[in-house]
Amino acid sequence: MNRDKPKCHCGVFGIQGIEKPAIYTYYGLHALQHRGQEATGIVSSSIKNTKYLFNIHKGIGLVSDVFNKPEILSKDLEGFAAIGHNRYSTTGASDSRKNIQPFVVNYRMGNLAVAHNGNLTNAKILREELVKEGAIFQTTSDTEVILHLIARSKKEKQEDQILDALRKIEGAYCLVILTNDKLFAARDPHGFRPLSLGKLNGSFLVASETCAFDVNGAEFIRDIKPGEMIEIGKDAKEIDDIISYSISDDINLKHCIFEFIYFSRPDSKIFGTNVDKIRRKLGKVLATYHPVYDPEGEKVIVISVPDSSNTAAIGYQNQLEKMGINSKLEIGLIRSHYIGRTFILPEQTKREVGVRIKFNTVKGVLEGRTVILIDDSIVRGTTSKQLVKLIREANPKAVHLRISSPPIVSPCFYGMDFPSKEELIANKFNGNIEEIRKYLGVDSLEYLTIPEMMEAMVDHEREHFCTACFSGKYPTKVDFNTVKEEYEPY
Amino acid sequence: MNRDKPKCHCGVFGIQGIEKPAIYTYYGLHALQHRGQEATGIVSSSIKNTKYLFNIHKGIGLVSDVFNKPEILSKDLEGFAAIGHNRYSTTGASDSRKNIQPFVVNYRMGNLAVAHNGNLTNAKILREELVKEGAIFQTTSDTEVILHLIARSKKEKQEDQILDALRKIEGAYCLVILTNDKLFAARDPHGFRPLSLGKLNGSFLVASETCAFDVNGAEFIRDIKPGEMIEIGKDAKEIDDIISYSISDDINLKHCIFEFIYFSRPDSKIFGTNVDKIRRKLGKVLATYHPVYDPEGEKVIVISVPDSSNTAAIGYQNQLEKMGINSKLEIGLIRSHYIGRTFILPEQTKREVGVRIKFNTVKGVLEGRTVILIDDSIVRGTTSKQLVKLIREANPKAVHLRISSPPIVSPCFYGMDFPSKEELIANKFNGNIEEIRKYLGVDSLEYLTIPEMMEAMVDHEREHFCTACFSGKYPTKVDFNTVKEEYEPY
Amino acid sequence: MNRDKPKCHCGVFGIQGIEKPAIYTYYGLHALQHRGQEATGIVSSSIKNTKYLFNIHKGIGLVSDVFNKPEILSKDLEGFAAIGHNRYSTTGASDSRKNIQPFVVNYRMGNLAVAHNGNLTNAKILREELVKEGAIFQTTSDTEVILHLIARSKKEKQEDQILDALRKIEGAYCLVILTNDKLFAARDPHGFRPLSLGKLNGSFLVASETCAFDVNGAEFIRDIKPGEMIEIGKDAKEIDDIISYSISDDINLKHCIFEFIYFSRPDSKIFGTNVDKIRRKLGKVLATYHPVYDPEGEKVIVISVPDSSNTAAIGYQNQLEKMGINSKLEIGLIRSHYIGRTFILPEQTKREVGVRIKFNTVKGVLEGRTVILIDDSIVRGTTSKQLVKLIREANPKAVHLRISSPPIVSPCFYGMDFPSKEELIANKFNGNIEEIRKYLGVDSLEYLTIPEMMEAMVDHEREHFCTACFSGKYPTKVDFNTVKEEYEPY
Amino acid sequence: MNRDKPKCHCGVFGIQGIEKPAIYTYYGLHALQHRGQEATGIVSSSIKNTKYLFNIHKGIGLVSDVFNKPEILSKDLEGFAAIGHNRYSTTGASDSRKNIQPFVVNYRMGNLAVAHNGNLTNAKILREELVKEGAIFQTTSDTEVILHLIARSKKEKQEDQILDALRKIEGAYCLVILTNDKLFAARDPHGFRPLSLGKLNGSFLVASETCAFDVNGAEFIRDIKPGEMIEIGKDAKEIDDIISYSISDDINLKHCIFEFIYFSRPDSKIFGTNVDKIRRKLGKVLATYHPVYDPEGEKVIVISVPDSSNTAAIGYQNQLEKMGINSKLEIGLIRSHYIGRTFILPEQTKREVGVRIKFNTVKGVLEGRTVILIDDSIVRGTTSKQLVKLIREANPKAVHLRISSPPIVSPCFYGMDFPSKEELIANKFNGNIEEIRKYLGVDSLEYLTIPEMMEAMVDHEREHFCTACFSGKYPTKVDFNTVKEEYEPY
Repeated sequence: MNRDKPKCHCGVFGIQGIEKPAIYTYYGLHALQHRGQEATGIVSSSIKNTKYLFNIHKGIGLVSDVFNKPEILSKDLEGFAAIGHNRYSTTGASDSRKNIQPFVVNYRMGNLAVAHNGNLTNAKILREELVKEGAIFQTTSDTEVILHLIARSKKEKQEDQILDALRKIEGAYCLVILTNDKLFAARDPHGFRPLSLGKLNGSFLVASETCAFDVNGAEFIRDIKPGEMIEIGKDAKEIDDIISYSISDDINLKHCIFEFIYFSRPDSKIFGTNVDKIRRKLGKVLATYHPVYDPEGEKVIVISVPDSSNTAAIGYQNQLEKMGINSKLEIGLIRSHYIGRTFILPEQTKREVGVRIKFNTVKGVLEGRTVILIDDSIVRGTTSKQLVKLIREANPKAVHLRISSPPIVSPCFYGMDFPSKEELIANKFNGNIEEIRKYLGVDSLEYLTIPEMMEAMVDHEREHFCTACFSGKYPTKVDFNTVKEEYEPY
Repeated sequence: MNRDKPKCHCGVFGIQGIEKPAIYTYYGLHALQHRGQEATGIVSSSIKNTKYLFNIHKGIGLVSDVFNKPEILSKDLEGFAAIGHNRYSTTGASDSRKNIQPFVVNYRMGNLAVAHNGNLTNAKILREELVKEGAIFQTTSDTEVILHLIARSKKEKQEDQILDALRKIEGAYCLVILTNDKLFAARDPHGFRPLSLGKLNGSFLVASETCAFDVNGAEFIRDIKPGEMIEIGKDAKEIDDIISYSISDDINLKHCIFEFIYFSRPDSKIFGTNVDKIRRKLGKVLATYHPVYDPEGEKVIVISVPDSSNTAAIGYQNQLEKMGINSKLEIGLIRSHYIGRTFILPEQTKREVGVRIKFNTVKGVLEGRTVILIDDSIVRGTTSKQLVKLIREANPKAVHLRISSPPIVSPCFYGMDFPSKEELIANKFNGNIEEIRKYLGVDSLEYLTIPEMMEAMVDHEREHFCTACFSGKYPTKVDFNTVKEEYEPY
Repeated sequence: MNRDKPKCHCGVFGIQGIEKPAIYTYYGLHALQHRGQEATGIVSSSIKNTKYLFNIHKGIGLVSDVFNKPEILSKDLEGFAAIGHNRYSTTGASDSRKNIQPFVVNYRMGNLAVAHNGNLTNAKILREELVKEGAIFQTTSDTEVILHLIARSKKEKQEDQILDALRKIEGAYCLVILTNDKLFAARDPHGFRPLSLGKLNGSFLVASETCAFDVNGAEFIRDIKPGEMIEIGKDAKEIDDIISYSISDDINLKHCIFEFIYFSRPDSKIFGTNVDKIRRKLGKVLATYHPVYDPEGEKVIVISVPDSSNTAAIGYQNQLEKMGINSKLEIGLIRSHYIGRTFILPEQTKREVGVRIKFNTVKGVLEGRTVILIDDSIVRGTTSKQLVKLIREANPKAVHLRISSPPIVSPCFYGMDFPSKEELIANKFNGNIEEIRKYLGVDSLEYLTIPEMMEAMVDHEREHFCTACFSGKYPTKVDFNTVKEEYEPY
Repeated sequence: MNRDKPKCHCGVFGIQGIEKPAIYTYYGLHALQHRGQEATGIVSSSIKNTKYLFNIHKGIGLVSDVFNKPEILSKDLEGFAAIGHNRYSTTGASDSRKNIQPFVVNYRMGNLAVAHNGNLTNAKILREELVKEGAIFQTTSDTEVILHLIARSKKEKQEDQILDALRKIEGAYCLVILTNDKLFAARDPHGFRPLSLGKLNGSFLVASETCAFDVNGAEFIRDIKPGEMIEIGKDAKEIDDIISYSISDDINLKHCIFEFIYFSRPDSKIFGTNVDKIRRKLGKVLATYHPVYDPEGEKVIVISVPDSSNTAAIGYQNQLEKMGINSKLEIGLIRSHYIGRTFILPEQTKREVGVRIKFNTVKGVLEGRTVILIDDSIVRGTTSKQLVKLIREANPKAVHLRISSPPIVSPCFYGMDFPSKEELIANKFNGNIEEIRKYLGVDSLEYLTIPEMMEAMVDHEREHFCTACFSGKYPTKVDFNTVKEEYEPY
């Protein structure tokens, strides 16, 4: 992932009713690695001496770093069900290890493990109420609030306790919950983030994206519906064995449009539509409204910032062709995938080393051509600026930048991590695109407008999306003062 | 420490009112390393942007392994107060990392960190009650029970909340508690485990043993009294600034006699008496009632199992001398201190490698002599048996074993970790000392009796000790069914 | 890199006349990571107290793993010149660490560090001679032979000693040699592997591929000529300061054609030509001789196995278009770049997990289409088989596989690592392409023939390439018995 | 070991003719850990497919750190013979890993591994000659010189090649050499360092000290004689199977007297005598010539600096008793054995933390008493000074320091590592003992004189010892300019 891109908070996965469930979870988390690269964990439920035992393994790093011995998966995490989580790490808390999910606790109904993707908008208030009642918090995570709410529910049945908790929380959540013998999955009534249900022989899977089913050779069944909680018992074999509960009657769809633009993998199907399809359509709309012609009528070259903009670039070039513009899709940038944690020493910052270690140009392709560079979004603009400079070194005739989304202007309160409002390039230049163009050093710069972006959302009603990061219009009440640190003394 | 010795659960340390408090805590934990070698942690309280911030660093391993960079102490753990803990690890829980102390939580009064040495006898009942009320538990530790009790207290002042909790718990505890700006230290009304107060310039320290003051060049002031809780405020400078609270009026002293026999360091002062003094006295009493004469009137050789029995051996030989027995103190066993985690491969178990890598004999000292081997206690007897075999290889005339405590027959419910009742050598041979003698392969074997042991407890009333491990008489109600696993599903 | 691809032995880099030379070497090695991912090292030359001091840092792992602290680069490896090496590891020698390059020794002229890319064909004989004369070998590497030859030269001047050595060795080599104050670079008279010269302000660089210049913002000057050794003195500032020596008059160009087909990065310029250009041409030739039509005349979909076949796929589709075949370039396979060392547990091998964790299909793109899959080469065929199965799950109308090189049939003796001859799929089926097609499960399979492949080698004479892996015709004498183990007792 | 003590360079071990030889080597190296704590390695010889294969495992750290998995010993290092080495590390060379022994090379006779304890006095000259002849050096170690000498010998038989090399080297050496099927052990004609032969069932062992036999349950046979090389063939079963060679006829015994004073373990037998016996005798002589009386005739207390001076303290007190001086042996200092790498932060240096973390006083023993502190030697004096200050805090009546060896004044050229001449306390005060006394803060200070020390060397001729560190008289020609750095450019 590009450092200068918003970061997704998390990816979740769960599987019920299979031997060695951690192995499937491991592959699932691999496929979801792009949703959180800082820490990961798996919890499995097993039976030992007639008692339910939860097995836990978590750590800081990529999935392949944390689960670095096969025994962890096949022995330590044995059982019949498991859930897993990838996370984007918190700020450098000295004991940040505590915040790695899934969270596991023991309460009056037995073991409980929770993996959460999203962000609660009323976590602060709920936490304060719980604290007043004598609750103790071991982390600063929203997820611990949910655990307390479940444990404090007066309901008798576990499913009702969980529903009780879900009905109190607001904001964006996709939850995967493991109890002694059941797997629950729940999605907020706005459906902010994706969550799907899959099947592999007689077992059931849930995952943030369908690519986690594909890696396991499992079959996609359907999305968990917004406002729905499903319960998958230990012995569920058929789809009819899955129990569906309604969290709320007040369903008001607000899918995160950024999942289509950048977050989700192009090979996933989310919100009922293939990501690839939407992304291609975004490229087409971008070409329709923001084409580029070569002044001398020569063939223009369409290149993408690999890999996230590849599909949009295809769509863009296809549309140019349809529009009769003489164009060609090319690979003008090569991306290195061996980066790891690479140092950019102070001496090197001037020389664009940051972007050079990630990208290189294919000079023969760019030299003397009118180049259209397709990117999915611009956040701070620093990488884009360096990238343009790099492209310029290959002596193109011109560089035109086309963005397959509108300018980002507002923070996300639903689980996406942007830099501060001030750091966003669109805000830095007060939305003056000509100023941004100059800063980036391109011959022309055009973004999609919000209505144009909406044209690409085929199969969906426009009002079913949250576009807050582009429009500043939040679909729910948000407390702008919710600076986490306020209630996070450690 | 000897593998075949009981293991102490913990060592605790705290310091208030000093710059870089973690450095002193680090040296203190070093000095207390013998009380717990499996994991360690330090928590400091600092002020950042006018808010109290807790800094945490914990890990599995020795103090020098976990705190392996000076910056951890001088920067990461900055502040004005700190507490630390050494622990003896739990069984191989896959996420045992969670059980490393100090525990840190956030509750309505702010941050709270707790380090605990001891064992609660009513933890199970308290935990069940809490769980019924909706509490969630993230560990299986008694200490988390205490945290919940504090947070659920209806009292307004923090000191009253803590007292509320302390008045509910039973068993053995020495607690060091860090709040945003205060350091509390508390000791159970039986005074099972030691806990002392020290002073270093204008700052105050608490520690399980006074050797943790010595390493810091601090001065011993007094013991925390059984049934006492003290509060040391951020700005306490004089002893009068320390507030003392009574946890209970029902003080019934039951000092762990094993602290004198084996646990505590000989250079510490606990329960008001130097350990060295008692241990020497134990040796003298042992000589008085259980002397050894050479049949030919030749000089007998007194040797200790280093290092834990060194002082008792001195006392024994001194007394023999007084009794007119021709004797000499010798170093007959050399102990290697570079062991680390050493593998005993299956091929090697027969050849006493386990004891050979730890001990070697000084042959010239032992050959042809009547040897009196002094040991402080025998638990399983396996190491002793191997040791005797090793000594026999040096061709002594005879080997007499004298133990400066009675046979161990019962488990401890107050924080000491013995092997199961069946594994204790005294039980294996039904207390038949002649049988144990044969098993160990010595010419004679004598233990102290309980009354004899009591003779050595100068400065103390006999009834002020817990001798349950020798007598089976427990000073408090204990639930023999408290098999932890019962309520530990993960 | 794909596991089922031949592995390149090494990448080399050197820089002379710059402050903090290790930083540039580090970025250069990053860019060359694809040429060797198992171990890496950097050696710099510095002056300390008027004496030349060599600084060394090597380790097992990727460049970003081995150089994991910025101080290593800026402090430990200070100086004015440095060389670096990426290697593909040897078999599991228990002390394989010794084989990590650059090799550093001290001989009568001072320090000497060597980094080598290639494989000597007369190493065994030279080694035996040296051993007879009393040489001792600390590794099993060819490179140590070169070091001995230099040290044993009777010549007085260091450059002559090196030339002496180079004139004795045969086979493929690109060498970068650091002495106290000079940087030498040499290339065998066949020019098997690429080696280029670059310039950055007043300093000079040499590297296996030009992408290592680009990452540093340096400028490509020219290739080191086959049979040439250059000497770059400490104070060389201008190109004229570089001294060129002739190793041999018998220049017989035999560039490794596999560098163009797969090894080198598409953004590099090697053997005087952009890799991208050749790779695109390979795709065009492939389309010309091996096109695919949809039987119903529908649009055919051209997809690549990302990323190595991307450029060939572009060329293929462009040519189809020119040929009037209704076609479209598509992204049908998504490649995950977060793999790391991923376990394929025995339970999972059946389910193609190996390929699934690396690739996923974009179903919408493939469903119902005639798909042409472009791959650069097939080695064992196991990954290809699984990949085809994966593509089939997306229900394409047909899957046609086109390979932009001929079948691999023979081992390489010049630095490329193939599996054993028996494991090569072309040999397993005795070159019967129809059998291979059946095994892989595609509707049609076509390779380039050797003459067709040669058509793509624009700017080059056909006889200037080594095609031994495809033809079995070795351009030099090779000893087929040179099984390394023969003279490798440790 | 005490940081302020001279450091021994190495410990060596070898075993021939046993299954899993690395296991015995591992235990032997454990027992020899005190001779070198910075790095360790084991090499075993095995047969694989009828060829001899050397297996190597080395690393930086203690034996238990480097061999941290049982498989390393039982599988990786399989075979029928093995040698091992503990070393005291070189200065912070960035690639110091190369200097870890045993060194392994391959030469015309096959594999060769060498472990060396000692220091060659003509290494520089030999190295220069070899370099002139074209030898390349990969390390700065003397040992590599020996390897070159063996490989360059014109002799045909391996034993003659080794003898050839041994006859060229001068200085102190104990060598253990492993060839494909033989184990050689050699000791220089002065017999500077100890080296013994042992037997375990049908296999033979060699080791620097006999404690390495004891740990393995093996039997001591005899010392390797000064000037002797022994050859133990693969099938040697009886002592008669061992072949003895004479390196030189010019035997001139010069045992390192410091081995008796401090280096060797008290439970070892070296140079034909139990270390314990000599050390006790040193204490007796010290008491005879340097007794201490209490001015009021009260009982004086004899304490040792544990553990290295324990035996001398026993001897001292026994002699006082014989002399009718009212005295008692006491444990006045407790030593902590859990130190590891402990940080002394700058803030803490003033407060004697360095000595406090290692030692604590038993106050009750010292208070009000006339204390005689026995130490084996003083090097820099910094630790001693802090220790005295610590003892003073326990309020003794007086502190008298007695040293069981003379003042150290000269460097060692035979394998012992002292600080620079200027740092030695005896030199700092120009041998003025009264000045040293004042600096250390004791009431009286007395050392043994050289003749007194010699009185303790029972069973030995006085001239059979090297006392150069005390006398400055070197038994061999030494080149004082041999500053290693001179020929160590890396």
